Amino acid sequence: MIEPSILPGFMELLPGDQIAFNKFLKKIQESYELFGFLPIDTPVIEKAEILMAKGGEETEKQTYAFTKGDNELALRFDLTVPLARYVSQRQNELYFPFKRYQIGKVYRGEKPQKGRFREFYQCDADVVARDILPLNYDAELVSLIYFTFKKLAIGDFVVRISNRKILTGLLEELGLKSTGGQILRLADKKDKMSPERFLAELSELVANQEKVDQIIEFLNFNGSPEESIHYLESRKFKSELFNTGLSELEEVVNTVRQLKVPDTNWRVDFKIIRGLDYYTGTVYETTLVEYPQLGSVCGGGRYEDLAAYYTDQKLPGVGISIGLTRFFSQLKEIGAINSNIKTTTQVLISPMTENILPKANSLASVLRQNGIRTEVFSQQSTLKKQLDYANKQGINFVAIIGEDEITSETVTIKDMGTSDQQTIALVDLLDYLIPKI
Amino acid sequence: MIEPSILPGFMELLPGDQIAFNKFLKKIQESYELFGFLPIDTPVIEKAEILMAKGGEETEKQTYAFTKGDNELALRFDLTVPLARYVSQRQNELYFPFKRYQIGKVYRGEKPQKGRFREFYQCDADVVARDILPLNYDAELVSLIYFTFKKLAIGDFVVRISNRKILTGLLEELGLKSTGGQILRLADKKDKMSPERFLAELSELVANQEKVDQIIEFLNFNGSPEESIHYLESRKFKSELFNTGLSELEEVVNTVRQLKVPDTNWRVDFKIIRGLDYYTGTVYETTLVEYPQLGSVCGGGRYEDLAAYYTDQKLPGVGISIGLTRFFSQLKEIGAINSNIKTTTQVLISPMTENILPKANSLASVLRQNGIRTEVFSQQSTLKKQLDYANKQGINFVAIIGEDEITSETVTIKDMGTSDQQTIALVDLLDYLIPKI
Repeated sequence: MIEPSILPGFMELLPGDQIAFNKFLKKIQESYELFGFLPIDTPVIEKAEILMAKGGEETEKQTYAFTKGDNELALRFDLTVPLARYVSQRQNELYFPFKRYQIGKVYRGEKPQKGRFREFYQCDADVVARDILPLNYDAELVSLIYFTFKKLAIGDFVVRISNRKILTGLLEELGLKSTGGQILRLADKKDKMSPERFLAELSELVANQEKVDQIIEFLNFNGSPEESIHYLESRKFKSELFNTGLSELEEVVNTVRQLKVPDTNWRVDFKIIRGLDYYTGTVYETTLVEYPQLGSVCGGGRYEDLAAYYTDQKLPGVGISIGLTRFFSQLKEIGAINSNIKTTTQVLISPMTENILPKANSLASVLRQNGIRTEVFSQQSTLKKQLDYANKQGINFVAIIGEDEITSETVTIKDMGTSDQQTIALVDLLDYLIPKI
Repeated sequence: MIEPSILPGFMELLPGDQIAFNKFLKKIQESYELFGFLPIDTPVIEKAEILMAKGGEETEKQTYAFTKGDNELALRFDLTVPLARYVSQRQNELYFPFKRYQIGKVYRGEKPQKGRFREFYQCDADVVARDILPLNYDAELVSLIYFTFKKLAIGDFVVRISNRKILTGLLEELGLKSTGGQILRLADKKDKMSPERFLAELSELVANQEKVDQIIEFLNFNGSPEESIHYLESRKFKSELFNTGLSELEEVVNTVRQLKVPDTNWRVDFKIIRGLDYYTGTVYETTLVEYPQLGSVCGGGRYEDLAAYYTDQKLPGVGISIGLTRFFSQLKEIGAINSNIKTTTQVLISPMTENILPKANSLASVLRQNGIRTEVFSQQSTLKKQLDYANKQGINFVAIIGEDEITSETVTIKDMGTSDQQTIALVDLLDYLIPKI
């Protein structure tokens, strides 16, 4: 006998939670389609040389790579590298700007630790263009995040927007280009440390106190999107990078306004950097107001050139991603997902004795033909046990058929919510049930 | 530069086909839920010892297995072994009979050949019980196949039903127990060879001509389900196995009648064996009337004990499976899937000049808030090019906004199907559009 178990770092749910998880997936998919993003599905296994093209020691260590026959294979560790390969390979068959979404599992052989998964769902939406991608799409993604999280209905949220050129330009203006990368990485972690610690670490990187103050003032700036733009304009910096970032951010801010994203759901925040090096312009992070401890639950940004490893064609893009497995498991842990529903069945048909099963089957078929999700309790059992099953599974209606019901061509419908019980003529059953379910 | 490509034996679609594929997936999921099956999702990677518990040389050769850290891992090669592990592991948290469906990718490192995939979607529905599983579920699955293929709307289909005990019992009755396995395997392939060849191969296994004739008469029997039962009863065999199979089949036939599956969509066919050894009773195969060359597109059956490797608890079950990747690729190849639709977008908003983009954005937001899937053409382009894009993508409505429309607070809606063009006041737009899309 082999002890049944799964590997650490892999999420597996009971059916009730799986139903809740699938609802999230569906809502995200529907939101992405509301904006005209097209679905793609790439293989989980690809050639190792394709997935590892960019390399990087960390990525290589975490990637599940192996040999089968003569092939060096690997499991995808994100959906961006496969997108780059897909677009390069099929650029003559696609329309640009190419708006695609992909929802699928990715694999990272990380050290297992709380809240880290080795297999997790990513839900990505990206717009990829040839040569030039209008900034309108950078703003559209803010609207997309707004529609998506509104639909997920897990409380208030804020999309924080910045443009990496701004902070990079500021550092250039301050003559801190050589330590720029380190300062950006530190700024990225600012919200996860105390102000004192941040000041100490920043001072180690920047000798000049005035410059330290100026950086901190930037990172702490807090105002409306328009005030943020105004603040940047008032700096009158000469750095071309800074001024490009400013004008890009301004256009994005104006466009988000046109897209009617409510004031409370977005803001400009110069602290937003995003860890990944390949973002070059607009960057986003999304936080839940009631659950700030979850950190960013949807991030993304603009990148200059998606697929430089696979094609000479310049393919700029902008995208967002929701790491749904971690997000769902966090929401579950803090009790934000707490449903008693363990099924999607709407009606349980309960035959009182075994000889009534044929009638129960026929009725089930009629209900299903009318789109009503129906189960027949097919094991001989007492009514009490059958009602108990409906109750525990969260099935709202039980259709009870006994000898009396057979004789009178009726069925007794029990509403499990109100315990109300009504005997309905079989000919009237659909008219009775359909408005209630 | 690395040549962008994927491995042979992996299916990857362009967005238009992916939309069609996803519709299939959704219809299958909805059908399974109509019968009260609950979703589960198990990891793609599991411990090798779990997935390989049953062993078998063929399985081991085909399984993607590898080592990461100290762990021997493998990719799942079906959804049945993970179900067995899942049910054994969580039997105290599940309700029995446990009706679960799972739709996901599985991996088989087979020699690549036409129509064989190394990564493919399986869509499984199974009912698993503790100790005893009523035959009602065997019949319910026929109804489930009926509802599913009706919904897929790819023409007429027939679910063929048998019970393995019948043919095994016949062989027992004929004193052919020792060669029984070989005869069953041959019968399973009967429809794939000429009658002459079948006769020759059967005669090699069975010396007695009378017995050969009797087996062939059985396999060729063709009548209504009731006639099939009658035919079996008329044999008056003593084999207990045969008679058990007969009485099981009779109950399934009666129940399928109660479930109102139309006559044309099912029949009894004693040739149905199913390759897999572990089926012990009812077996199903489904064929498309217009495309018999596809073979069985949905098969399954009843098994005595799902999880003997992981638990002492006896868990009998019955299930069906659709191998969707192969099925979809075959339908595509024979032209049964031939859609010009390449998007799910319903409305394309076309701003005539760049300065109209703000109005286009605001309108997009209103349409999306009303659930209309909307794209904004955000790159500066001529109307002709924008209409051309809508045409090629299969978007039905284009909302054109030029200076005139801005002044008069209207929008011009072009129906791409009829080329009909109407100018509608902005305040009336939703009332005009919603009934049409």
